[in-house]
Amino acid sequence: MKLDAALGAWERACVRAGALRFVDLNLRAAGQVMFQDNPLSGLLFLAAIAWAAIDAGTPAILAGTLLGLAAATLTAIWLRADASNLAAGLYGYNGALVGLALPIFLQPSPLLWACVLLGAAASVVGTIWTAAVTRNWGGAALTFPFVVTTWVLLLAGRAFAGLGGQALPPPGPTGAAPTLPLAAADVVVAVLRSVSQVFFLDDTVAALLLLAGLALGSSAAAALALAGALLAVLAAMAMGADGGLIRAGLMGFSPVLTAVALGSVFYAPSARVLTYAAVGTLFTVVLQGAMNAALAPLGIPTLTAPFIFATWLFLLPRRHVAGIVEPADAP
Amino acid sequence: MKLDAALGAWERACVRAGALRFVDLNLRAAGQVMFQDNPLSGLLFLAAIAWAAIDAGTPAILAGTLLGLAAATLTAIWLRADASNLAAGLYGYNGALVGLALPIFLQPSPLLWACVLLGAAASVVGTIWTAAVTRNWGGAALTFPFVVTTWVLLLAGRAFAGLGGQALPPPGPTGAAPTLPLAAADVVVAVLRSVSQVFFLDDTVAALLLLAGLALGSSAAAALALAGALLAVLAAMAMGADGGLIRAGLMGFSPVLTAVALGSVFYAPSARVLTYAAVGTLFTVVLQGAMNAALAPLGIPTLTAPFIFATWLFLLPRRHVAGIVEPADAP
Amino acid sequence: MKLDAALGAWERACVRAGALRFVDLNLRAAGQVMFQDNPLSGLLFLAAIAWAAIDAGTPAILAGTLLGLAAATLTAIWLRADASNLAAGLYGYNGALVGLALPIFLQPSPLLWACVLLGAAASVVGTIWTAAVTRNWGGAALTFPFVVTTWVLLLAGRAFAGLGGQALPPPGPTGAAPTLPLAAADVVVAVLRSVSQVFFLDDTVAALLLLAGLALGSSAAAALALAGALLAVLAAMAMGADGGLIRAGLMGFSPVLTAVALGSVFYAPSARVLTYAAVGTLFTVVLQGAMNAALAPLGIPTLTAPFIFATWLFLLPRRHVAGIVEPADAP
Repeated sequence: MKLDAALGAWERACVRAGALRFVDLNLRAAGQVMFQDNPLSGLLFLAAIAWAAIDAGTPAILAGTLLGLAAATLTAIWLRADASNLAAGLYGYNGALVGLALPIFLQPSPLLWACVLLGAAASVVGTIWTAAVTRNWGGAALTFPFVVTTWVLLLAGRAFAGLGGQALPPPGPTGAAPTLPLAAADVVVAVLRSVSQVFFLDDTVAALLLLAGLALGSSAAAALALAGALLAVLAAMAMGADGGLIRAGLMGFSPVLTAVALGSVFYAPSARVLTYAAVGTLFTVVLQGAMNAALAPLGIPTLTAPFIFATWLFLLPRRHVAGIVEPADAP
Repeated sequence: MKLDAALGAWERACVRAGALRFVDLNLRAAGQVMFQDNPLSGLLFLAAIAWAAIDAGTPAILAGTLLGLAAATLTAIWLRADASNLAAGLYGYNGALVGLALPIFLQPSPLLWACVLLGAAASVVGTIWTAAVTRNWGGAALTFPFVVTTWVLLLAGRAFAGLGGQALPPPGPTGAAPTLPLAAADVVVAVLRSVSQVFFLDDTVAALLLLAGLALGSSAAAALALAGALLAVLAAMAMGADGGLIRAGLMGFSPVLTAVALGSVFYAPSARVLTYAAVGTLFTVVLQGAMNAALAPLGIPTLTAPFIFATWLFLLPRRHVAGIVEPADAP
Repeated sequence: MKLDAALGAWERACVRAGALRFVDLNLRAAGQVMFQDNPLSGLLFLAAIAWAAIDAGTPAILAGTLLGLAAATLTAIWLRADASNLAAGLYGYNGALVGLALPIFLQPSPLLWACVLLGAAASVVGTIWTAAVTRNWGGAALTFPFVVTTWVLLLAGRAFAGLGGQALPPPGPTGAAPTLPLAAADVVVAVLRSVSQVFFLDDTVAALLLLAGLALGSSAAAALALAGALLAVLAAMAMGADGGLIRAGLMGFSPVLTAVALGSVFYAPSARVLTYAAVGTLFTVVLQGAMNAALAPLGIPTLTAPFIFATWLFLLPRRHVAGIVEPADAP
């Protein structure tokens, strides 16, 4: 295939030039945000962020992503972290997300970029930590280091005037959620934005670029992402979630990740496995609503925490449940 | 004994008929809410719930319990979970409690019953997870899967209009607790309701049925339950807890479970072991007060969380402390 | 050296007299608040508390410290806990801190002293628990048992009128932090108070006594404490933290502990190790701000929690990172 040939040529170029290898590490790290150890997927994911940054006039989110990526990769190199994990981009995706999320919620300033650097570095330490602790019970770091680091920095935005967390909602209990009617066209928008919100982007073109990048790495993953988003949107509507949240993709992005994660760690999807993954995805929707309410007193967003907790919950029992075959240990 | 003969006849009937075995599994699961692997104890516990449901005119709590039980047991069978744990009812008690608690706090509706099904299924996955994770440090799943699942669904009640969490208190800080005088008769009521509140029932007749079921399985457990309740009520009074909470049994139900749990995992209760269990029970009372305050901003009840955390805390060191002999690994 | 001779004579006296050994255990436990297994360091730490107690007219904090120390040590003996840990004072420092902190935040009363006893006893169980659980991932108990026990008792102060938690701030979200200008002299005060706040003391003389006790055990630890405090104060100023908090040492005490902890578990500090410890210390400052905001809805202080979480985070990867040599397992 033409694609494989291109990837082969790229790999040979990387072997020759250290600078290209560094680019390769960062592209793979971008790809790992949605589990793709593949520089082309990563490139398309970055293209999605670039498009959304231009579209919304917020170049800081692209700059932050690239800064976080590079800082995390350099930190992992400096720490002499495990070489095969490094080569697969597993130390960089959390830093990329820290750099992407912080300029969305905090005011751009020199101090913010310093926080991206500190947060990206801390996320690498956090990745090593989380992988070691969760390995015992068959878990994986997922985006936990990103979520915790970003929560810490966002909360710190309330304590340090120099960080200015103006974009954050005021802390306080949520009111009863109003139910707005959604038309069929809204469902399509909601499904696509559920995909783009995995990268905190409210942008349908970015969603298509992300799906393309995903399909490039694994067509099953792309199908699971769409199916997960659709299931989440329909479930959220049936349960009477706020129509505005559904339409913005904010009830569906964690379920998208859960569907891809639970689907992609199993060999040979069967009806049995898909049922299991569907229950996990539904549980993520409920957890998204619950965490929205739980974090309201703190005034911070859930980020991808519902995905992490649901996936950890549903990952472990696969080892204790007969009839689910799994590949050799995922990183 | 007549009782042993009846249990033997029942066991033989179960071996012959699959439907009876399914009933047996569910009865044992009901019994495991208070650590009794015994169908008759489970039957009496269900009778207590049935009585309270009729007495208070809330049939939904009995329906929810039975639905949660059956859903959890069927999920465990579908997951092909460990057969001996399944036979002992260890996969069903959390689902029973989910089905019991949800109709107390949320409005009965078709969506609620769907949530009971989802919650009961998730509680089985959660039981496998918690047992695996806590095994390393000598813990057990206890009611942790129930508590977390129910917290998630109650919080989700604020995010999804279809769930309507009207019975929940509004989120907000608790005020200073007023101290109401309690008479000697109130202490008796408070002790009995501390037992019935293990099943979230505010009913003295139910308490007597529960104690009968407990005594049927283990007279030591029944004695520990009463002693734990009395210690908790007296301690809560001495510390100036709200008299209304004490009288309703709401300061004592977690300590009841701690007393039974710490007492029943040790061989041969001695003065030394009872002292240790008493400190653990007292600590549970303090933790109940602390968690009441800690969860006020979220507006959700503690459920049996104080019992879980206190028991986990006091269970582990038994392996590191000389002079406490323990039986082979509890499930 | 004269000091070594004195310590040798003391050790010989302890071997002869059980009462002196009990004093020795408690002095070492006091020393372990800042990682010093050394009775003289402990004596100077207690002297610092005594000075601050007299200076501020709050004798209850000294009485509480001594009561907590003795209760924890006796509990550990009663539990027949590990003899070498006991001899090193590792079961007593959490109890000492419980006894020190409670009278600061709760009204002195017979019930308070009962809570100190219960809290100190529970902290020993908590120390055994935390050490066992964190051992798997290379952690240590640190002051986690103290922090959790004290949080529980402070929150309980809102539920039990007899405990009267009047000294606690009202729960509620924090406002935007005002930035007050700090002069050079203020920086010196802030650095010293960052040291004394490790023991929740707002007192520069106590800080000097603490530094003397630290230097007596390890001059590197004293240097790391001062360097950590300075880094924390400057970072907090640069990020625009509230000047009043900085000046009172409340942004720097957890970073002081992180700097000493990360510095003292590594052999042969190198530029590489110091860089790693400095990033950990900076992260602790951010975490202090974040936890101030996170705990505001509960109205409880962070205590030394930022130190614990940052140190746990940065301790584990040392085993996974090449180029950092470490001593045999710390207790």
